[in-house]
Amino acid sequence: MDDKTSPNFELPGFRFHPTEEELLDFYLKNMVNGRKMQHDIIGFLNIYRFDPWDLPGLAKIGEREWYFFVPRDRKHSNGGRPNRTTEHGFWKATGSDRKIWSLSEPKRVIGLRKTLVFYQGRAPRGTKTDWIMNEYRLPDNYVLPK
Amino acid sequence: MDDKTSPNFELPGFRFHPTEEELLDFYLKNMVNGRKMQHDIIGFLNIYRFDPWDLPGLAKIGEREWYFFVPRDRKHSNGGRPNRTTEHGFWKATGSDRKIWSLSEPKRVIGLRKTLVFYQGRAPRGTKTDWIMNEYRLPDNYVLPK
Repeated sequence: MDDKTSPNFELPGFRFHPTEEELLDFYLKNMVNGRKMQHDIIGFLNIYRFDPWDLPGLAKIGEREWYFFVPRDRKHSNGGRPNRTTEHGFWKATGSDRKIWSLSEPKRVIGLRKTLVFYQGRAPRGTKTDWIMNEYRLPDNYVLPK
Repeated sequence: MDDKTSPNFELPGFRFHPTEEELLDFYLKNMVNGRKMQHDIIGFLNIYRFDPWDLPGLAKIGEREWYFFVPRDRKHSNGGRPNRTTEHGFWKATGSDRKIWSLSEPKRVIGLRKTLVFYQGRAPRGTKTDWIMNEYRLPDNYVLPK
């Protein structure tokens, strides 16, 4: 059993399998709001400095899915779109962003999900791989609590 | 979020999603060997005293799956087969038992899984439901360590 699945928990069988609501409404919101978290489950990483097969080894937790807080890189300023190129390929969005709704009342949009696929090679060519990324962000109109 | 999903763990996103190897090689084996467990994750219950829809409320943990240690009831002594009748129906095995192999070396059979479906009504009639049970047991040749 992989130690990474339970960093602070000695019990077999417990895994980090968060819902989208937990990811957005707890982990991402707490991070954005600068709340100190007791446990360091999700680390910060500029994932585009790495190819996807390097990422599992850089995550604090996870088995078939790995989680990172990713600073937005807008230094290339290409129309506001972040640079999603890595050393050996690039991430390409599939379809349009999906709204994520809260499961609990009141029903509201708690964030957005963009799904991306990794291609090896250089855009606009490249070979599609099985690496998938779900990128979550808070709603564009999200306001920090005072 | 249901408190039951994390009895001792305050962090959202952690769930009890054990592998079959963890269920057999850790939880069931420790119970059979009488090892005291630090946390009380899986309780004892004669599940046949209840209908399946009552079981979630009687589990210590779980969301869409619930776990119990079930004493074998052989009091009816019907050819060694336990009585699987409840108040409103009965559990019926589907197919034959499956061997569960360890994922880690050395590869070995660590237990058996019987899958059962709940029927409302009385055998041999009854209406099939969506309630599924996986019953795990240690291999018949399992020997308690000294």
